[in-house]
Amino acid sequence: MAQIPSRPLAVSLGDPAGIGPEVVAKCWDRRADFGLPPFTAIGDPRSVAQIWDGPIEMIDDPRQADSVFDHALPIIQIASAEGDIPGRPSVSGAHCSLDSLEIGVGLTRSGSAAAVVTGPVSKEQLYSIGFTHPGQTEFVAERCGVSRGNVAMMLAGPSLRTVPVTTHIPLAEVPSHLSAALIEARGRTTLRGLQRNFGIPDPTLAISGLNPHSGEGGMLGREELELIEPAIAALRAEGWRVTGPHAAESMFNSAARARYDAALCMYHDQALIPLKALHFEDGVNVTLGLPIVRTAPDHGTAFDIAGQDLADPRPMASAIQMAAFCAANREMAE
Amino acid sequence: MAQIPSRPLAVSLGDPAGIGPEVVAKCWDRRADFGLPPFTAIGDPRSVAQIWDGPIEMIDDPRQADSVFDHALPIIQIASAEGDIPGRPSVSGAHCSLDSLEIGVGLTRSGSAAAVVTGPVSKEQLYSIGFTHPGQTEFVAERCGVSRGNVAMMLAGPSLRTVPVTTHIPLAEVPSHLSAALIEARGRTTLRGLQRNFGIPDPTLAISGLNPHSGEGGMLGREELELIEPAIAALRAEGWRVTGPHAAESMFNSAARARYDAALCMYHDQALIPLKALHFEDGVNVTLGLPIVRTAPDHGTAFDIAGQDLADPRPMASAIQMAAFCAANREMAE
Repeated sequence: MAQIPSRPLAVSLGDPAGIGPEVVAKCWDRRADFGLPPFTAIGDPRSVAQIWDGPIEMIDDPRQADSVFDHALPIIQIASAEGDIPGRPSVSGAHCSLDSLEIGVGLTRSGSAAAVVTGPVSKEQLYSIGFTHPGQTEFVAERCGVSRGNVAMMLAGPSLRTVPVTTHIPLAEVPSHLSAALIEARGRTTLRGLQRNFGIPDPTLAISGLNPHSGEGGMLGREELELIEPAIAALRAEGWRVTGPHAAESMFNSAARARYDAALCMYHDQALIPLKALHFEDGVNVTLGLPIVRTAPDHGTAFDIAGQDLADPRPMASAIQMAAFCAANREMAE
Repeated sequence: MAQIPSRPLAVSLGDPAGIGPEVVAKCWDRRADFGLPPFTAIGDPRSVAQIWDGPIEMIDDPRQADSVFDHALPIIQIASAEGDIPGRPSVSGAHCSLDSLEIGVGLTRSGSAAAVVTGPVSKEQLYSIGFTHPGQTEFVAERCGVSRGNVAMMLAGPSLRTVPVTTHIPLAEVPSHLSAALIEARGRTTLRGLQRNFGIPDPTLAISGLNPHSGEGGMLGREELELIEPAIAALRAEGWRVTGPHAAESMFNSAARARYDAALCMYHDQALIPLKALHFEDGVNVTLGLPIVRTAPDHGTAFDIAGQDLADPRPMASAIQMAAFCAANREMAE
């Protein structure tokens, strides 16, 4: 992932009481090790200063980050009304995290930043201030004018990329949520995302079955025959390279992974279990289907360890690297 | 896994038209590399001879394998009525595979063999000759006088052991099959199996949730609150070390795996996906809850590649190693 976009990245710090400020500051500290391109943080500088004694420099526009990044962590200031304490989330911190997210997306939409990387927020806190989206992904989609049905959550690691068709619903509801149209839509978003964000001109998508052994010809469930195979046929008819339905247990060994660019899975854990078993520290959440590049580390606010210098910056570093890679691919295609 | 049991192992060849004979013969060829203890094959010697030109010696009792194993592959003969052709399963081959399995179990029950390792059979072929069990595991359980509800299928690799609570049923039926009593029973069988087969005096069992993020406190499903937590409480009340319910996505990274001896999962793919992502060539099927040790390689007959010298013997070698390890642990405890 050596490509570097021509503009700096925007990194929202997330909840100021979480580990977001700490991992972003640590990423700046280790920018050479991690090979990180210039980025600006967006959020409350106090949330960084109270857990980190490195140099900070306030900027107004991401493009200023280029000249600052060598000697200080650039921050676009979004002040929280009250100073926040690590591990103690507050209403003002929730407002700050939402404003940071919104500014990060806006700067990327306007072209000032090459991509937005979003730090971890607390959904509970956001809900308490009237946030009505299931998560940051849906908020970003709306701000970009894309309906949430047309975005897809990809989890990407060095040797595996997975996209779940259904996400945060009870397992019992997965079969009734699945339809050939939904599988097709997610498949198409994934394939286009592989082209645009990953620079793969003719990507291969492997689609999983839902049931053990992919249903064993209907003996262990009929969704493969009735929903998944028709979706695969429809995508192939459009000219896409699509394989499956595959027995999920046999899709994620190294030989199998070498045969596709992404795996489309039927439910949350089918996509997340293999990704996190193989790539716990370097799996990145990439939102596909947006006009901009958006990535996020695949962890939460971790309020329980915030402010204790315990947070691992590698997931955030991977998210920044991935955002740079995807943004550079988009620039090359323009 | 240096322990060696005092008696030879019994290895049924499985379907004579599948890859079982080939992988067992290759294991004998590489017995020194793989560090395999003496074993005897059980099945039709012609199924071995037609795909392998190594030395074969017929024996009547597994104990004779000790003196033969150095210079020839010992075989206890179960002749198929017709000579079988690799890749072309037949009724007589199905009878042969079932007889080999039955003899292998019987010799182990009687104490002539230290453990039984079962080669791959074709369920379709077995059903055609009136076999009424879902698979070899249930047949072995019945021959051992254990009800199928009291055995558990463990998949064991070098860094992970998983046991699914439910196995070969459609995903849509998993929630209605789960009960606190079933989770408890499988948990108990697994914990006892860790003691008896793996020699772990005070094992730790990690139990997964069913839903994304383990249900997020009931927001994404209630099985964790209503079924899994009560089962965990009941097992703990018996004195077992049990943790969970854990979000499945966060259970299988290396740091998490180091904290338990086995993971009890709610459904087939939740157990099989991480195991096979991490240990595709060396995952072994171990049946827990039996009076004997039984293992099997985690692959099928592979009729499509049989007779072409393409089959990888490593899964069978792992199954033989694991059987020896478990049998030695049981002998030490006696």
